[in-house]
Amino acid sequence: MKRARLRELGIATGLLPTGPLNAITDVQGVRVGHATVNHDTPSVARTGVTAIWPAGPDIWSNAVFAGFHSFNGNGEMTGTIWIAEQGLIAGPVCITNTHSVGVVRDAIVAYAIRERTQQPWHLPVTAETYDGWLSDADSFPVKAEHAFAALDSAAGGPVAEGCVGGGTGMICHEFKGGIGTASRRVDTAGRTYTVGALVQANYGQRELLRVDGVPVGRAIGKDVVPSHRDLPNPAGGSIIVILATDAPLLPIQCQRLARRATVGLAWVGGIGANSSGDIFLAFSTANRVALGKPVADVGMIAPDQITPLFQAAAEATEEAILNAMTAAETTTGRLGRIVHALPLDLLQDAMRRHSPSSRTAR
Amino acid sequence: MKRARLRELGIATGLLPTGPLNAITDVQGVRVGHATVNHDTPSVARTGVTAIWPAGPDIWSNAVFAGFHSFNGNGEMTGTIWIAEQGLIAGPVCITNTHSVGVVRDAIVAYAIRERTQQPWHLPVTAETYDGWLSDADSFPVKAEHAFAALDSAAGGPVAEGCVGGGTGMICHEFKGGIGTASRRVDTAGRTYTVGALVQANYGQRELLRVDGVPVGRAIGKDVVPSHRDLPNPAGGSIIVILATDAPLLPIQCQRLARRATVGLAWVGGIGANSSGDIFLAFSTANRVALGKPVADVGMIAPDQITPLFQAAAEATEEAILNAMTAAETTTGRLGRIVHALPLDLLQDAMRRHSPSSRTAR
Amino acid sequence: MKRARLRELGIATGLLPTGPLNAITDVQGVRVGHATVNHDTPSVARTGVTAIWPAGPDIWSNAVFAGFHSFNGNGEMTGTIWIAEQGLIAGPVCITNTHSVGVVRDAIVAYAIRERTQQPWHLPVTAETYDGWLSDADSFPVKAEHAFAALDSAAGGPVAEGCVGGGTGMICHEFKGGIGTASRRVDTAGRTYTVGALVQANYGQRELLRVDGVPVGRAIGKDVVPSHRDLPNPAGGSIIVILATDAPLLPIQCQRLARRATVGLAWVGGIGANSSGDIFLAFSTANRVALGKPVADVGMIAPDQITPLFQAAAEATEEAILNAMTAAETTTGRLGRIVHALPLDLLQDAMRRHSPSSRTAR
Amino acid sequence: MKRARLRELGIATGLLPTGPLNAITDVQGVRVGHATVNHDTPSVARTGVTAIWPAGPDIWSNAVFAGFHSFNGNGEMTGTIWIAEQGLIAGPVCITNTHSVGVVRDAIVAYAIRERTQQPWHLPVTAETYDGWLSDADSFPVKAEHAFAALDSAAGGPVAEGCVGGGTGMICHEFKGGIGTASRRVDTAGRTYTVGALVQANYGQRELLRVDGVPVGRAIGKDVVPSHRDLPNPAGGSIIVILATDAPLLPIQCQRLARRATVGLAWVGGIGANSSGDIFLAFSTANRVALGKPVADVGMIAPDQITPLFQAAAEATEEAILNAMTAAETTTGRLGRIVHALPLDLLQDAMRRHSPSSRTAR
Repeated sequence: MKRARLRELGIATGLLPTGPLNAITDVQGVRVGHATVNHDTPSVARTGVTAIWPAGPDIWSNAVFAGFHSFNGNGEMTGTIWIAEQGLIAGPVCITNTHSVGVVRDAIVAYAIRERTQQPWHLPVTAETYDGWLSDADSFPVKAEHAFAALDSAAGGPVAEGCVGGGTGMICHEFKGGIGTASRRVDTAGRTYTVGALVQANYGQRELLRVDGVPVGRAIGKDVVPSHRDLPNPAGGSIIVILATDAPLLPIQCQRLARRATVGLAWVGGIGANSSGDIFLAFSTANRVALGKPVADVGMIAPDQITPLFQAAAEATEEAILNAMTAAETTTGRLGRIVHALPLDLLQDAMRRHSPSSRTAR
Repeated sequence: MKRARLRELGIATGLLPTGPLNAITDVQGVRVGHATVNHDTPSVARTGVTAIWPAGPDIWSNAVFAGFHSFNGNGEMTGTIWIAEQGLIAGPVCITNTHSVGVVRDAIVAYAIRERTQQPWHLPVTAETYDGWLSDADSFPVKAEHAFAALDSAAGGPVAEGCVGGGTGMICHEFKGGIGTASRRVDTAGRTYTVGALVQANYGQRELLRVDGVPVGRAIGKDVVPSHRDLPNPAGGSIIVILATDAPLLPIQCQRLARRATVGLAWVGGIGANSSGDIFLAFSTANRVALGKPVADVGMIAPDQITPLFQAAAEATEEAILNAMTAAETTTGRLGRIVHALPLDLLQDAMRRHSPSSRTAR
Repeated sequence: MKRARLRELGIATGLLPTGPLNAITDVQGVRVGHATVNHDTPSVARTGVTAIWPAGPDIWSNAVFAGFHSFNGNGEMTGTIWIAEQGLIAGPVCITNTHSVGVVRDAIVAYAIRERTQQPWHLPVTAETYDGWLSDADSFPVKAEHAFAALDSAAGGPVAEGCVGGGTGMICHEFKGGIGTASRRVDTAGRTYTVGALVQANYGQRELLRVDGVPVGRAIGKDVVPSHRDLPNPAGGSIIVILATDAPLLPIQCQRLARRATVGLAWVGGIGANSSGDIFLAFSTANRVALGKPVADVGMIAPDQITPLFQAAAEATEEAILNAMTAAETTTGRLGRIVHALPLDLLQDAMRRHSPSSRTAR
Repeated sequence: MKRARLRELGIATGLLPTGPLNAITDVQGVRVGHATVNHDTPSVARTGVTAIWPAGPDIWSNAVFAGFHSFNGNGEMTGTIWIAEQGLIAGPVCITNTHSVGVVRDAIVAYAIRERTQQPWHLPVTAETYDGWLSDADSFPVKAEHAFAALDSAAGGPVAEGCVGGGTGMICHEFKGGIGTASRRVDTAGRTYTVGALVQANYGQRELLRVDGVPVGRAIGKDVVPSHRDLPNPAGGSIIVILATDAPLLPIQCQRLARRATVGLAWVGGIGANSSGDIFLAFSTANRVALGKPVADVGMIAPDQITPLFQAAAEATEEAILNAMTAAETTTGRLGRIVHALPLDLLQDAMRRHSPSSRTAR
């Protein structure tokens, strides 16, 4: 069966409507690019880089507000000490594998130098999840050129999902994971706002996987679809969630939004296992802070209008994870190791079996 | 239909076994007491105080490790600045209504003076959720004597749930809420440990309520059971979660455990709405820090052994919330306002309708 | 010698100019009131309440931005979980003794009810330091009426310092402490802004006390002026710092400003001793967030314009502490205990002796 | 005049005794290594890497407790999300220039792979300050080999200071800065413990510089010693402080210790200017957490015994900064730019002039 997005399978999660693309790029100005590194020689590489631009090329001198939350910090996201201090992002965000955080982080600095930005130094945001079970991470297959390629190729519009970019070698709930995205639209504070999520999903136990509350992970047992956890040296995992919105949030409100990724993750079955780096970043494109302006005029959504955005963040995160899984394909990596894709027919089957039956209807 | 605990209804959530009482008191040494304040004159009061002793009366000079997490901080828990600094609790924890945090907090100081503790000053832990929709909170019906009564009556064994103590006037997912508790046992690090949860549940939207993944809140519509949200001035709500364990956790690990209450809350349908004070406290009874000892010898569970405790914290929180709702009874409060209990027959009905049907089984 | 403010003694600290009053009330709209509780029967009380209104009576529905920092959290400041979440203060701030945090906190709720504010509930900010060495704290001499009196009497203009309000029974660097205030003006971002500080100073070791770098505490030894630390049961101490500014700061920037109180405290000789509750709160009156407005338009000073405000916060904190000490008078409290005031002549003497001599001038 | 350590100039700061080396290596097991990158072609490089091993080569599988504090987060320290979560460091710490954080961070991963550690992945700690005024940072002169060299050359014993390793191109209070170290010994909890500090100092304004309270920066004006701030494009700066101790601290206590670096920094004249990345890391070698052990037995110094360690951390930080300045030599860098060393004779002169004169003695 051809891989698909969750809604193409007739399955919908959440209560809120999606944006037109059901992707993080529904937030105006956000661009996403992937560089996929997939080769068998000289080493077996199933890895890559995914780049998210919060806004156009003026981002270097015209920052957006941001905030992050570490639900379980066994992971890395560079630049967070600066975000905690200033509440700003002034450059792109990249996600890659654990061993390559440094090369990608420095590549963003080099990219900024190439772009002749006004800032003499940068504190780039680069996050990671670990793909060393499928990919020979110790061979350091990701190079600066891959970060440049991801950054250069970034665009609006539909976003490739599954085994692409940073998500190429990832594993989620003991099925193949990777990159996923989704979005929600909400009416609040007199306007319609969009919240989009992009995840690099590489965490979780099979038995905890749920889709719209249905215990799909228990329905599709390891006797039906084998798990890499029954093979030697299964690695733990992580999830990076990037949330974007066009609602006018202050940095402290971006932190609040980021924290809601926890809810979407929990709905799918993430509990923040010890070895998981579950780190969430949220930014708002509605406010821009330009270098050189002494006082910035910014908007702040009223606290009592913000709850629908929280709901949207939770729902977009949930569906982005599921999209990562329904898009990702069965992958063979180093040492002949195989991670199986979530079987879409069995998924649909499980959903049908748990839908309300007429048997007990009143 | 008589009120009951969730499992008495044939409904179980989570994967792990419960402790013998399925209560926070399954953690050896933990004691719980309630003082319920329920009168119609001179003001209409539906309120009270719930006290949790982490350990016996030596707690004042023989502290336990603790950590907290504020998932959404529109609430109060005194003593948290001290807990963040020292990672210790050296006294009981009380939960009451929002307007009465001060009187209960000072009452704990007075209680300590009565007990002739060695410490000249105290930074007590008192948390709250708001019951002003049903109860005339502005009349300040809670007095120091109620805090003393809750503290003095605390005991191990089964814990009263629903409309008792601090939970008397609470509302949860637009049904009657209150106090609930649950526990889980896990085998890890070569031993069996217990994690217990006690909640004062006063948050949430009907449509988001789920029980074991089943959208019960949508199944029991407002046409079937009216919601107070359709009446004037519905107030927002909050949830306080207290987690106890006998596993040897350091303060930083207690913080981690506390953060997992977010997962259990999300499973039931909490998203941390703006006006919600979703504040979680975790303590470990396995390590004691005695006044006067220059260096304490303490144990720390290995990070790679801790994940089952996280799962337990999430599950115990989830079931404690549901127990609060299945125990709480329909309550009439000030201005004749009514909050309906979750109908247990409709709950069972909804669960049955969503159980896997044979229709599509393979 | 008559008690005086530091500058009246011919001693100035810091590089920046003061505001006209050299007080927190130099920030337009800020009001301060004290209720001093000083009696010898039925118990010996040397205590009270100090109230700071960030703005006029519309504060209840027209909040200001705020942030806090706990340098050493052996203390209490209620309302901080809400401030961390929302970055707002929507009511007055009170400071009192440790045992009375609750009664004062609830009194602010009662005050709000009396004022018929639009909010059904409140999360008031009340902080404390411990005065139990001089005052019979266990007799709970502070009542709700004292909080009301401090709130009602608050005014702009000069601020009483030393043994007044919450500062009545406090001890600082083993001399008599209490309430102090100071302010600074800075030119940045094209405007002149004011930063004011008010402290309740109750911390510190004699030997660490410095005035403008001069080791005054070592110069005025315990043989010259006795210290209460040589008497039985000296208690540890704490310092609460309230910073106000009319510069347009976001909540995250108020947190940054609050953190700079650490610098001013360090300059005087505070190191955050274990038992000290060194908790700092900063608010900005330039931005107001009104209830009912869906999106607030707010200003944010550019990060690269903010450093002078940091310098101002450090200097105002330093001088406010010193003003508390030069204003406070020798006080006799319970059990005949005496805490001596810093001798102003010896202070001047020490300053002169350390001023640059011509002897080695080039 | 030959460069020297502060105490060799007859100047002492603080009240506590130093360790035998007055260096971070006074803490048993701590090793420090430098790789200095100093060349004029193909680019002008004044940079390098400084490596600190908290313990011997078993650190990879036998972690130490750690905690950090960001006083002003305009900087980078990788690995901090993991430290915040687990309170552990399981590898060396490196400090370099801002643009080279990535290459050094990944080099630590490569080093770990070479060492065949048991861990499949690593979250290394690499911090930075910016040397781009003197050094052509945009040419990325630091390579992985330099990190390896710093790591391999690390040793106990005396530590080279000033223009070495990561400190080669740094500027402090408008004089030449760099690497500095110091230590203190304290008697507490029945034992003698050591606290050591190592700083990479690259921050500060001339006019705020103080030595033992004496306003040395104002005494040595820009007319006497020119400042780079009067030349085009002066960059802001930062300071990284690494604190080590053999006292038994829990992670939460390491955080407390790290926070005290603020005090030492403030004493020298640091205020956390906006562009400064003032990030402090503290670790304790007394407790080790070995991989594979289900429960670790660890010691925790009693809170009421910890204050002397705080004093030691403040004093060691203060003196380490001053040692960096007295050791660093006048340096010419790219574009012929010069940063002058602090003149030691003028420093001694200023100190003498502010010492207590007999003139006013009583």
